[in-house]
Amino acid sequence: MTASLAIRPATEQDVPLILAFIRGLAEYEKLAHEVVATEAGLRETLFGDMPRASVLIAEWQGQPAGFALWFYNYSTFLARPGIYLEDLYVEPDYRGRGIGLALLRELATIADREGCSRIDWAVLDWNRSAIDFYRKIGAEGMDEWTTFRLTGAALEKLANRD
Amino acid sequence: MTASLAIRPATEQDVPLILAFIRGLAEYEKLAHEVVATEAGLRETLFGDMPRASVLIAEWQGQPAGFALWFYNYSTFLARPGIYLEDLYVEPDYRGRGIGLALLRELATIADREGCSRIDWAVLDWNRSAIDFYRKIGAEGMDEWTTFRLTGAALEKLANRD
Repeated sequence: MTASLAIRPATEQDVPLILAFIRGLAEYEKLAHEVVATEAGLRETLFGDMPRASVLIAEWQGQPAGFALWFYNYSTFLARPGIYLEDLYVEPDYRGRGIGLALLRELATIADREGCSRIDWAVLDWNRSAIDFYRKIGAEGMDEWTTFRLTGAALEKLANRD
Repeated sequence: MTASLAIRPATEQDVPLILAFIRGLAEYEKLAHEVVATEAGLRETLFGDMPRASVLIAEWQGQPAGFALWFYNYSTFLARPGIYLEDLYVEPDYRGRGIGLALLRELATIADREGCSRIDWAVLDWNRSAIDFYRKIGAEGMDEWTTFRLTGAALEKLANRD
């Protein structure tokens, strides 16, 4: 890691920055219409009584350049926790400088320290540059699996059915 | 729900049962060779100082018939926690009695109570009967996404690279 680049844990003061990064990632993923997160919501769920995820901020020459948001998952086959990387994002102006790799490396170090034997994350199938990067560091696509999601009216119906 | 069926939270006394269910699921998924979990490992990670996941046990006429293991995940787009269902399993002798649905319904009730707006889980693409069941209750496949996993030597290499 060069002296230009630093990775640090986010604090509550970073909430506006985190929301801007979330929106930047959503725009890149063509999913901006799905973002309903607010600063208040992030403050409560990330820095309140029961933090639901952890955030790393990457700074390039002191300027915020990207972030990673993660939480613990769990493997029943291993009986061990793992790390799930929900968001990894580097601002367009700062790409090509190894910032994404540095964020992943910091996560790998956390995994090592915390006894987690995996880092998992989801990638949009059209995002070839991301997929190439992930394969280059040795990640493998779980191509036989599909994630299913129950949400909205279907979830409410299931909760209320007798 | 009929009087024959009950869903209850697991306790530490259920650890041998949970391991048997994990092995049963792994065999069904043709992944039994990947199970290295032990009773000691499950006891520590599920019922120790820092529980990493929660377990529901389904009983049919007082006999253990299946289980669900889950933990919280997090949506940055919503700034809200969600539920991730890691394992859902019903013993072969007890299938076709609505036990899987009852476990999902209990999870939907927990989601409702805890302010979670989603339940996510992964399904093997060849498991048509499971996929048909999930679609029937209104779940949708996240077909544009692939999960990537970094583990083993590649994870260690990333953690140790300077």
